[in-house]
Amino acid sequence: MKNAEKQISDEEAVNNTSRTHLLEKVNFPKDIKNLSVSHLCQLCEEIRSFMIGCVSKTGGHLGAGLGVVELTVALHAIFDAPDDKIIWDVGHQSYPHKILTGRKKQMHKLRQGGGISGFTKRSESKYDPFGAGHSSTSISAGLGMAVARDLDILLNPDRRKNYVICVIGDGAMSAGMAYEAMNNAGALTIDGKKSRLIIILNDNDMSIAPPVGAMSSHLTKLVSSKPYINVREFGKKITDVLPSTIRNVAKKAEERARGALGGGSLFEDMGFYYIGPVDGHNLSDLLSILNNVKNSNHEGPVLIHAITQKGKGYHHAENSADKMHGVKRFDIVTGTQKTVKSPAPSYTQIYSDTLIKLAKDDEKIVAITAAMPSGTGIDAFAKAYPERSFDVGIAEQHAVTFAAGLATQSYKPFVTIYSTFMQRAYDQIIHDVAIQNLPVRFCMDRAGLVGEDGQTHAGVFDIAYLGCLPNFVIMAPSNEKELANMVATAAAYDEGPIAIRYPRGNGIGIELDSETKILPIGKGNIIQKGKKLAILSLGTRLEECKAAAKIIKSQTNIDITIADARFAKPLDKVMIKSLSQNHDSIITIEEGSRGGFGSYVLEFLSSNALLDKGLKIRTMTLPDMFQNHNNQTAQYQEAGLDAKRIATLASSLMV
Amino acid sequence: MKNAEKQISDEEAVNNTSRTHLLEKVNFPKDIKNLSVSHLCQLCEEIRSFMIGCVSKTGGHLGAGLGVVELTVALHAIFDAPDDKIIWDVGHQSYPHKILTGRKKQMHKLRQGGGISGFTKRSESKYDPFGAGHSSTSISAGLGMAVARDLDILLNPDRRKNYVICVIGDGAMSAGMAYEAMNNAGALTIDGKKSRLIIILNDNDMSIAPPVGAMSSHLTKLVSSKPYINVREFGKKITDVLPSTIRNVAKKAEERARGALGGGSLFEDMGFYYIGPVDGHNLSDLLSILNNVKNSNHEGPVLIHAITQKGKGYHHAENSADKMHGVKRFDIVTGTQKTVKSPAPSYTQIYSDTLIKLAKDDEKIVAITAAMPSGTGIDAFAKAYPERSFDVGIAEQHAVTFAAGLATQSYKPFVTIYSTFMQRAYDQIIHDVAIQNLPVRFCMDRAGLVGEDGQTHAGVFDIAYLGCLPNFVIMAPSNEKELANMVATAAAYDEGPIAIRYPRGNGIGIELDSETKILPIGKGNIIQKGKKLAILSLGTRLEECKAAAKIIKSQTNIDITIADARFAKPLDKVMIKSLSQNHDSIITIEEGSRGGFGSYVLEFLSSNALLDKGLKIRTMTLPDMFQNHNNQTAQYQEAGLDAKRIATLASSLMV
Repeated sequence: MKNAEKQISDEEAVNNTSRTHLLEKVNFPKDIKNLSVSHLCQLCEEIRSFMIGCVSKTGGHLGAGLGVVELTVALHAIFDAPDDKIIWDVGHQSYPHKILTGRKKQMHKLRQGGGISGFTKRSESKYDPFGAGHSSTSISAGLGMAVARDLDILLNPDRRKNYVICVIGDGAMSAGMAYEAMNNAGALTIDGKKSRLIIILNDNDMSIAPPVGAMSSHLTKLVSSKPYINVREFGKKITDVLPSTIRNVAKKAEERARGALGGGSLFEDMGFYYIGPVDGHNLSDLLSILNNVKNSNHEGPVLIHAITQKGKGYHHAENSADKMHGVKRFDIVTGTQKTVKSPAPSYTQIYSDTLIKLAKDDEKIVAITAAMPSGTGIDAFAKAYPERSFDVGIAEQHAVTFAAGLATQSYKPFVTIYSTFMQRAYDQIIHDVAIQNLPVRFCMDRAGLVGEDGQTHAGVFDIAYLGCLPNFVIMAPSNEKELANMVATAAAYDEGPIAIRYPRGNGIGIELDSETKILPIGKGNIIQKGKKLAILSLGTRLEECKAAAKIIKSQTNIDITIADARFAKPLDKVMIKSLSQNHDSIITIEEGSRGGFGSYVLEFLSSNALLDKGLKIRTMTLPDMFQNHNNQTAQYQEAGLDAKRIATLASSLMV
Repeated sequence: MKNAEKQISDEEAVNNTSRTHLLEKVNFPKDIKNLSVSHLCQLCEEIRSFMIGCVSKTGGHLGAGLGVVELTVALHAIFDAPDDKIIWDVGHQSYPHKILTGRKKQMHKLRQGGGISGFTKRSESKYDPFGAGHSSTSISAGLGMAVARDLDILLNPDRRKNYVICVIGDGAMSAGMAYEAMNNAGALTIDGKKSRLIIILNDNDMSIAPPVGAMSSHLTKLVSSKPYINVREFGKKITDVLPSTIRNVAKKAEERARGALGGGSLFEDMGFYYIGPVDGHNLSDLLSILNNVKNSNHEGPVLIHAITQKGKGYHHAENSADKMHGVKRFDIVTGTQKTVKSPAPSYTQIYSDTLIKLAKDDEKIVAITAAMPSGTGIDAFAKAYPERSFDVGIAEQHAVTFAAGLATQSYKPFVTIYSTFMQRAYDQIIHDVAIQNLPVRFCMDRAGLVGEDGQTHAGVFDIAYLGCLPNFVIMAPSNEKELANMVATAAAYDEGPIAIRYPRGNGIGIELDSETKILPIGKGNIIQKGKKLAILSLGTRLEECKAAAKIIKSQTNIDITIADARFAKPLDKVMIKSLSQNHDSIITIEEGSRGGFGSYVLEFLSSNALLDKGLKIRTMTLPDMFQNHNNQTAQYQEAGLDAKRIATLASSLMV
């Protein structure tokens, strides 16, 4: 542990810019190839300081990156990116990698409008062979690249046999996708040989929340049952590098050693060559081990089990409950994050508060999260009802069907998953819930645009992908009071699946009623009665519609109609028919992709002959190509879902 | 093996109806509770004969059911369904279960219009606690039921602690979903205790095709490394049933025994109590073991590893390559399936032939299947190009991201997965392919209605769920020649993701060109020029449109226009604009859900002011509630996508 043992003190961290004289000269991996181990160790410290300094100003994923500084430096010292492919699972731990691969100077614009992404991104750098944001994709992608290499070599034996390295966290290992990839990697052969692939299991006993599940216990057992592997033992293990004459003898010694060590059990059962556990902060050991693996002739997948500490080297991160996983701007000395006090609570908060209140009187309410207790507000629910709260790990597929099982036994499962992660469970939503018409409640936080996390985290498609399914009810609140009522509506609705989509961020500051109200299914709400043109809004863009109406009023002195659809499915047919008959024009608006609410309105109107004689109807949705920015305001501007653009469109129709 | 050793001879099988005198009296599980072991053995033989007789007339999944006859009888003898929940993964092995749970007399209408489903179905029987069709859902659903029970008991300690039993095949174990569920089941606690859950791993070394992957190798190793567990050994193992005074001593003996046996390794690592391997055709052993597990106080999940033989007891099934997995009607004596010779090749065949032809000149073409080599035609491709074909197991998530990895290295992956199973990989399609704009080719067989397999297998949603994604090109051929051209188009298109959806069944018999043609992206095809009304068809309903046009011609002497859209995305805007300007009415038609092609046409027309002055436009899609029938003709009638209904709608618009 000696190399990384030294913690950066608060004062040092503040003065970090003065302490980066090595890093100043390092821009690309080539710049570190000739550094001594002790210089590389110093570089690690400098990267830490630099990163803390940057992220204190931009916000971002701090803890994950701090945990892999030595690993990143070791990987770039030993392997030759971009020809060797280093794939960072999820990508939120890639800041040190970005710093070492030509993006150091852009770190101050991390996750900002026009700045670099907080995840890996192919379009950003050739050193990012695969983009991410969602978890557990790296082994599949890496196996694809390894297989491509081996097929290339069949065609051209002179091609360099480059390395593919996937770095995946222990939390990400709870996802079925990682298992599917291991199952394939452990057995697949090209020309009779297994494909060479290096997996580094970055085990920090922490994904976002502490990881759950049997795999996590297995890893803990592996780590606790034996000491860190040292280079001498490792020498015994990786005997394939030895000349073949003495290999057999050494092989037997190695097998004895592995037996004594207990083996990597589950990973070895899955066909991997297991090496570990390894101290992921001991740079010198990492360099030796990676070098040995690199020079080994071993065919097939290798798994290096590295133990790291999330937030390593910054004690405010090491000591915080979530290891400063995702942070806002913060004060380096105190570690205090600079939250702007909002006048209104977040939608997440309202959801959580309401569910907790409802669960008091309804013992059948249970809540399910997929490894995101704090992001979804299920942490508070779990505190109130520990037996009725389930964190299933990064396992959305299981989460949904587990909920379906509960629903068959008259429970009321609230599956609380971000819109974008719900995509992981699409078949389960269809096959286990919709077709069987089971009353599972889907609470989809972060629906719509999400700001800094960018494209991969935007909840853009849920209306389209749920709206086409049978039996579904889909709601979207226009404000926090509506959300509270919709949570109550979902709790009361037992006829089949029901979903609520609500956005990231804070409500509009509307006062909540002391009692929630159960909404009639499929009934919208006229916000203001007017003439000529009606805006039919689904969700929280309603405030922009109101602002647009004011612009129109000021320009034309005409009061237009505004309606809050509340339901994307079933539609309020009576209301929509009436709007179509009493206005010349209708604009629908939703913070989602095409093929959603607007298209259902069009289908309803066309199939009921309500377009036959002409109706100027326009559907405002997110554009097909969305979110090239990491900045929420820029995202909305790009999407054109703001008051000004709504008013402009409306005016053009009212001419 | 003695009980099931005796094979049914051909003659006996033919004369099966005379040999079911025990079965004649058995309709529900209660009817077998008092039968002796030898009578239960006889019942197994009678069930086999009866089932072979039925399926020879109806077609269906034969091999899977034959493999679990003893298991089914043992489960119903020992447990008390429906209070105890028996969940059959996939459900295609549930025929013996159906026979024993009130549906014996309906077996002759299996998978027929108005008949019972070929899978488990909640609406069909209270003995089917969870419906299925897709694989690997049972552990999740079962865990939900077990947790519901344990929560109930917290509220009401007098509630019976019923049993939940999931029967899952070894093939289904390659799916990430099963792993996610095991990861949760192995660790989840209610009130400090793990939930009691019984998993029976039905290991027949065969899913549809021989299973692939590291898990499968692990199972083989487990089985080959030790003999079947016998009841005496088992007695040592399941010591929890012993009085607590001597339990500790016995526990130590048991641990020694488990050590000697080698343990279930991977399953034990995942927190399961592993019992096995067990001879799944030895009824007497099964009864003892299930009874012991039932009466054990063991908390937490138990996995019983039963070895069975797919097709057991019918030698034509045992000896065929796929163990007669899914069969058409067949001759019992010869085992020959009664295929109606079609004048035209199937779409699957055309796809496979074309891809093989293209791959000859393009070494970058690779094909991926998720455990369905024969259903997708990838078996033939694999024969031609063994190194360029990948069966990844039941692992659609991995399949897609593996393909994305290959695409980053300039390969041309053809991911060939049924439309309904592609749902499993939705997030990977979005996150790893669409957002990164990687040229992965999605070839979605079984798009649209599929007949006997019913609701769970219909490919209804793909246009809606893919059409909302950025960067996608989506094609649907109107006949087999178009399909061949679209496969060539997909091979040539390197700009981003591209999908082809094509149906189950045979083409229309059109002659193929010797050379395939690359279609211009986003260009439709006018089939016949006419006036007043245009039908804009996507996919193979085009023939019905032509027939409808003839009906209209005969009634009104008017030639209407028919256009083949070819592309759901991007739309042929020039063609559609022109259709809208030159006709009073447009009907769109597609064999898919709402929110798809028709809605994109509506969005295009409305946003381009082409509806402002009135256009009678109707979108014909599959109805929101679809496929209550298992019969394809009935399905089409219910869907209303036939020539008569098209003509009727058209006539109403032309008045």
